[in-house]
Amino acid sequence: MSTPQGHHFLQIPGPSPVPERVLQAMHKQIIDHRGPEFARLGRDVLAGCQAIFQTGNPVIIYPSSGTGAWEAAIVNTLSPGDKVLMVETGHFATLWQKMAARFGLEVDFIRGDWRHGVDPAAIEAKLAEDATRAIKAVMVVHNETSTGVLSRIADIRAAMDRADHPALLLVDTISSLGSADYRHDEWGVDVTVSCSQKGLMLPPGLGFNAISDKALEASRHNTMPRSYWDWQEMLKPNANGFFPSTPATSLLYGLRESIAMLLEEGLERVFTRHRRLAAATRAAVNAWGLEILCLEPAEYSPVLTAVIMPAGHDADAFRKIVLERYNMSLGSGLSRVAGKVFRIGHLGECNELTLLGALTGVELGLAAAGVPHRPGGVAAAMANLAGRNADPAVP
Amino acid sequence: MSTPQGHHFLQIPGPSPVPERVLQAMHKQIIDHRGPEFARLGRDVLAGCQAIFQTGNPVIIYPSSGTGAWEAAIVNTLSPGDKVLMVETGHFATLWQKMAARFGLEVDFIRGDWRHGVDPAAIEAKLAEDATRAIKAVMVVHNETSTGVLSRIADIRAAMDRADHPALLLVDTISSLGSADYRHDEWGVDVTVSCSQKGLMLPPGLGFNAISDKALEASRHNTMPRSYWDWQEMLKPNANGFFPSTPATSLLYGLRESIAMLLEEGLERVFTRHRRLAAATRAAVNAWGLEILCLEPAEYSPVLTAVIMPAGHDADAFRKIVLERYNMSLGSGLSRVAGKVFRIGHLGECNELTLLGALTGVELGLAAAGVPHRPGGVAAAMANLAGRNADPAVP
Amino acid sequence: MSTPQGHHFLQIPGPSPVPERVLQAMHKQIIDHRGPEFARLGRDVLAGCQAIFQTGNPVIIYPSSGTGAWEAAIVNTLSPGDKVLMVETGHFATLWQKMAARFGLEVDFIRGDWRHGVDPAAIEAKLAEDATRAIKAVMVVHNETSTGVLSRIADIRAAMDRADHPALLLVDTISSLGSADYRHDEWGVDVTVSCSQKGLMLPPGLGFNAISDKALEASRHNTMPRSYWDWQEMLKPNANGFFPSTPATSLLYGLRESIAMLLEEGLERVFTRHRRLAAATRAAVNAWGLEILCLEPAEYSPVLTAVIMPAGHDADAFRKIVLERYNMSLGSGLSRVAGKVFRIGHLGECNELTLLGALTGVELGLAAAGVPHRPGGVAAAMANLAGRNADPAVP
Amino acid sequence: MSTPQGHHFLQIPGPSPVPERVLQAMHKQIIDHRGPEFARLGRDVLAGCQAIFQTGNPVIIYPSSGTGAWEAAIVNTLSPGDKVLMVETGHFATLWQKMAARFGLEVDFIRGDWRHGVDPAAIEAKLAEDATRAIKAVMVVHNETSTGVLSRIADIRAAMDRADHPALLLVDTISSLGSADYRHDEWGVDVTVSCSQKGLMLPPGLGFNAISDKALEASRHNTMPRSYWDWQEMLKPNANGFFPSTPATSLLYGLRESIAMLLEEGLERVFTRHRRLAAATRAAVNAWGLEILCLEPAEYSPVLTAVIMPAGHDADAFRKIVLERYNMSLGSGLSRVAGKVFRIGHLGECNELTLLGALTGVELGLAAAGVPHRPGGVAAAMANLAGRNADPAVP
Repeated sequence: MSTPQGHHFLQIPGPSPVPERVLQAMHKQIIDHRGPEFARLGRDVLAGCQAIFQTGNPVIIYPSSGTGAWEAAIVNTLSPGDKVLMVETGHFATLWQKMAARFGLEVDFIRGDWRHGVDPAAIEAKLAEDATRAIKAVMVVHNETSTGVLSRIADIRAAMDRADHPALLLVDTISSLGSADYRHDEWGVDVTVSCSQKGLMLPPGLGFNAISDKALEASRHNTMPRSYWDWQEMLKPNANGFFPSTPATSLLYGLRESIAMLLEEGLERVFTRHRRLAAATRAAVNAWGLEILCLEPAEYSPVLTAVIMPAGHDADAFRKIVLERYNMSLGSGLSRVAGKVFRIGHLGECNELTLLGALTGVELGLAAAGVPHRPGGVAAAMANLAGRNADPAVP
Repeated sequence: MSTPQGHHFLQIPGPSPVPERVLQAMHKQIIDHRGPEFARLGRDVLAGCQAIFQTGNPVIIYPSSGTGAWEAAIVNTLSPGDKVLMVETGHFATLWQKMAARFGLEVDFIRGDWRHGVDPAAIEAKLAEDATRAIKAVMVVHNETSTGVLSRIADIRAAMDRADHPALLLVDTISSLGSADYRHDEWGVDVTVSCSQKGLMLPPGLGFNAISDKALEASRHNTMPRSYWDWQEMLKPNANGFFPSTPATSLLYGLRESIAMLLEEGLERVFTRHRRLAAATRAAVNAWGLEILCLEPAEYSPVLTAVIMPAGHDADAFRKIVLERYNMSLGSGLSRVAGKVFRIGHLGECNELTLLGALTGVELGLAAAGVPHRPGGVAAAMANLAGRNADPAVP
Repeated sequence: MSTPQGHHFLQIPGPSPVPERVLQAMHKQIIDHRGPEFARLGRDVLAGCQAIFQTGNPVIIYPSSGTGAWEAAIVNTLSPGDKVLMVETGHFATLWQKMAARFGLEVDFIRGDWRHGVDPAAIEAKLAEDATRAIKAVMVVHNETSTGVLSRIADIRAAMDRADHPALLLVDTISSLGSADYRHDEWGVDVTVSCSQKGLMLPPGLGFNAISDKALEASRHNTMPRSYWDWQEMLKPNANGFFPSTPATSLLYGLRESIAMLLEEGLERVFTRHRRLAAATRAAVNAWGLEILCLEPAEYSPVLTAVIMPAGHDADAFRKIVLERYNMSLGSGLSRVAGKVFRIGHLGECNELTLLGALTGVELGLAAAGVPHRPGGVAAAMANLAGRNADPAVP
Repeated sequence: MSTPQGHHFLQIPGPSPVPERVLQAMHKQIIDHRGPEFARLGRDVLAGCQAIFQTGNPVIIYPSSGTGAWEAAIVNTLSPGDKVLMVETGHFATLWQKMAARFGLEVDFIRGDWRHGVDPAAIEAKLAEDATRAIKAVMVVHNETSTGVLSRIADIRAAMDRADHPALLLVDTISSLGSADYRHDEWGVDVTVSCSQKGLMLPPGLGFNAISDKALEASRHNTMPRSYWDWQEMLKPNANGFFPSTPATSLLYGLRESIAMLLEEGLERVFTRHRRLAAATRAAVNAWGLEILCLEPAEYSPVLTAVIMPAGHDADAFRKIVLERYNMSLGSGLSRVAGKVFRIGHLGECNELTLLGALTGVELGLAAAGVPHRPGGVAAAMANLAGRNADPAVP
């Protein structure tokens, strides 16, 4: 097998392909991070992030991965021994729970089957039971990247309100921000955790915390030791567009551009585009006769679709064939579902033809790997896209 | 209609998409074109061009379009009043013929239907008739970009040899070099004309002339006035890696990289890849029930496929829908076939999934434009590719 | 001597360093040169060129070097046997004269000492003598790149007007456009020849002709055969932003950006900056006790300064030391002055500290090469710049 | 004052200018961080870091600033309540001390005057006094970026050995790595902290920890809670070239290139070049009659030179003039010396002419700001460089 030629199809659920405009913007000499040109950059990206997170409150930007932003949310709001409520929606929810435990939090971890999102009723029940208000935070993943299940944050907020419980709401939007509708303020989220390399279409290297007044107030009293992640250290220089330690300037150049792209297209259109591509992908999977991991239609992810391999077939052997023969990277199954599912990313700057090209690669790969399936997935996706384009009711 | 998002599918028959490696290589500060670093660059690209043109003789590189390289071939070898033999294979052969006439050449232009390549027998007959050896050159287009027909240069050479005629053989490889098999020396070509933006995967801006000893000898005696295009002016500084006037350095950076890419993949593999993609494209067109412009299977172009629109449908209206709705550029019909054909480019760094993504765009576009066709073109292309992949006899 | 490290000082009189913004703008995928996005680009650059050439008439853009643009000016306006008046201001004027002769023009070449610009009085005298109006064109170089002498085009125009002679005025602004004040319309120039890699701060690869109505009229009747360079072929598609053959798209991306940069700074400020840097350079040369090639202060070039080496010292040996030891490229002496002068380019995006850094390299190089000189050149340049900065009367 | 034109001189002591080769290498599409191409990248940079840190032990790479790498060193080796010995060499040593306090460490902070490096004898005395071996770590800054003082790590190691004390040695090489000689293994350092944007010539965004076996052993028992920074989480996937959370791929592309550049030049030559430029800078400062902040010649930094402003003159007003008038960024004085010193960075890809250009900007700026000084600094720097170049004993 020779080296794959031509355009690589990067169809993992993040990092997503970086648009040409963003790569161009990043190809720029570094500037003095304490000078006036930087101040303009800093103010631009900090204000732009507010538009993307849909918040009027500050957004903190770290040189870090999304994992770092998880840690920041924890150490700024909670104290060792605090009780928190988390839900096992998949691999990443589990990792966040392990992190919480490392910091001495007592995690009430609601078990899950990795095929459903967070059940708002379960949250409400747990909070209602918590007469002493021992639970300090509800920590959930918006879009579980390992399963392709999107939890309903607004409903969770409503459940918390019904329980009239003062717990903070911490939400991981690592793979949803900029791809799935998300509203930090309107949904009453206290800390929104995110990162650069998914819906923001940037290289990895930036972590984000959007914070509510309530979270900020909590950060004034919690006792978790911290320094790098400390919000207070950030907020003061941020007010003038600066950062307490050297910021990742080249990624900020890119961030300014990617925010501009998202706002030019319009967030609503961006979200609609992702939903449309996801629906086409599911049409293909259904036509192939394969099973989608997510069991609840109201929770289908607009970002990625996880597909269950037929019994007796290894998802990673299939992915290897697709990579070597068709120059496409698909996402692997993680931990509990390793080898059992593969994931198709359809996020970021993905469009119809890119997605359909990717689906042809999946269909060809299934055949090449000897995976039992019905042909016609690509045709079904095309029909789905054509139908929706023709339907004036669907944008 | 909103602005198209995401990756643009540039599926015109050139300029072809510029690979990331080439764009990277070009993003480099300009250097002194008379200094030692430039000399290394110059020697690298001049030697590299010999490998690509498959010649041991010099290749001349101009800052120009391919049109300029046509002119260079004429003014270096012919004299006003010279008789030349040309063949109307399509739009570009016609343009070259008009250029020849502008320089006072007497062109015997063998008419054609734009659906066939050059007929070697016709050449042989014309040369055999030419008892006075008045014909000074046979000038043909290898791959006619306007029609998707590939002429058989080796057979033309054989026909000339059979006629035992001393005419020079001038060949336009503008859209074939680096995509279709081409052998300047082995096929006894005297001047090969080419450019940067097709199989060489570069931005436009470089024109080439590969020249035989016989052509060089002709250039010592012909009387066409010239300066910019003069080979002799080039050859002396070229010997040391330099150029007589300021060369297009950034494009030469790119050329060094694109030559390296072609040689790493291996020219034979590059040609096979193009043939495979072309076959898949034709499978799609046939399945749609549309007609391919090229009528002779032995002359199918590996570079592009021109498709005839059903009567009563405008190819440009269709192309506009594809561009606006699916963010893909297809080639238009030119002059005599304007509005009547569209062209699908599958050259350069094109690979399976890119082509299939493009074909989904054609199929969706046909439906969106109300062009009568059978669905299933993409499926046929996939089957074609899968079959060939499975066949150990086809690389 | 190890490989030079760090920033290379490219201080030749062109190609000049390409600004980061321009390189960024060029790092963009190629687009369909017959599509709507290209039309916007084409219109932008064609209109922008009018601003830079200071003309309301069309500017033609070729994929070519500046040499090609010379040829275009000749073949579009003159006929074989035409008499033209040219002036030997240096190497490039001589090359243009040789080109004119190749095209069968009868050149009256006013000899020069390579240390003065064109003498308007000599032009006037020649034209006054030409009772039959046999002279069809006066062809002069604005900024002679080989000598650092700037001819006074407005004065030449006035001389022609005084002689009331109908000859066309063709001016080479290859190394002056965008660096020295130049006004195509106001100065009554008929064809302005230029290129991309000097004041326009682009890589080499574009040639320009700005044309007057009178030149356009001449092009309708002259008999020089031409095709690639033909203005008429260009003007029709240009009206819609398109080009007759494939344009050098990546260079046009860069051109759009460099024009924007020049207009943002303001042409007047750009010219003043060049004059200021040139004055500082001359202050250094004078302080070193070396001689400037240009003998006429009113003709000092704002673009480059050519310096005469003391007798017995080889300019190229000196330049080699500067390159190897200080990682700076200086311009060589050409033909008649080879080895006898070196040239310091101070054009394009050059600024004070870049120039002064370059001058330290010259001063260190003079010492390292054992060239007799007084130290203090850099100090004199600094004093010159400081004084001018302090002087409110000089911008 | 118009917008500064042309090349910006970024002469702060980091971020340092990013070389063209590194920016080129970074301008590359993101790849699957769990795929085979990434594994090659990961292995390359991890092995390359060992060469740069001069260690055979692992180097950990974080998406973070250098501040994050400080935190990583603390939380992986120490426990709340541990006693550590630190030295107030300047602003950054003070910040690290504050961070240590935030994590509950008991810091014995040896006060300093910000004009000297760490005194090895003082370390030895403190350790000798520590009969109970309560001190768990000695934490020092190699090159204090705020003062331009380089501490002698090998001597500190020797002092610790003489005291026969088991404390760990943690060293901040944030602004020295890749610029000043540094040997993790030979000098017996336990944790070396560094980052990307200084001697490694990358954009900011990567933090590093090089670790000894002893540090790794400490990390198995210390009790500081941690997750993002945890070495153990890193080491396992690192063995195959992977990372536990998404790595900053584009910066790793750049890191691979910058390591290649440093090794091509040769570390010894890199260090010599920095020393030579620093000596020239000091020659300029002395000639101006200004005072260097560092009082101990054996501790002069090869990375930056901090200069004391004459009494009554504000360093920041001076820096503002230099920025606006000469398009150069100089480093500000920090905290205790704010407004009182300015800092000249001469690190990374800096070379002779760039430095001299920068020094002309300082000299012109001093005059423009009315700061009393003697002219001749640039001339002294030139003489210094010329002398050393001429001296065969100095490389």
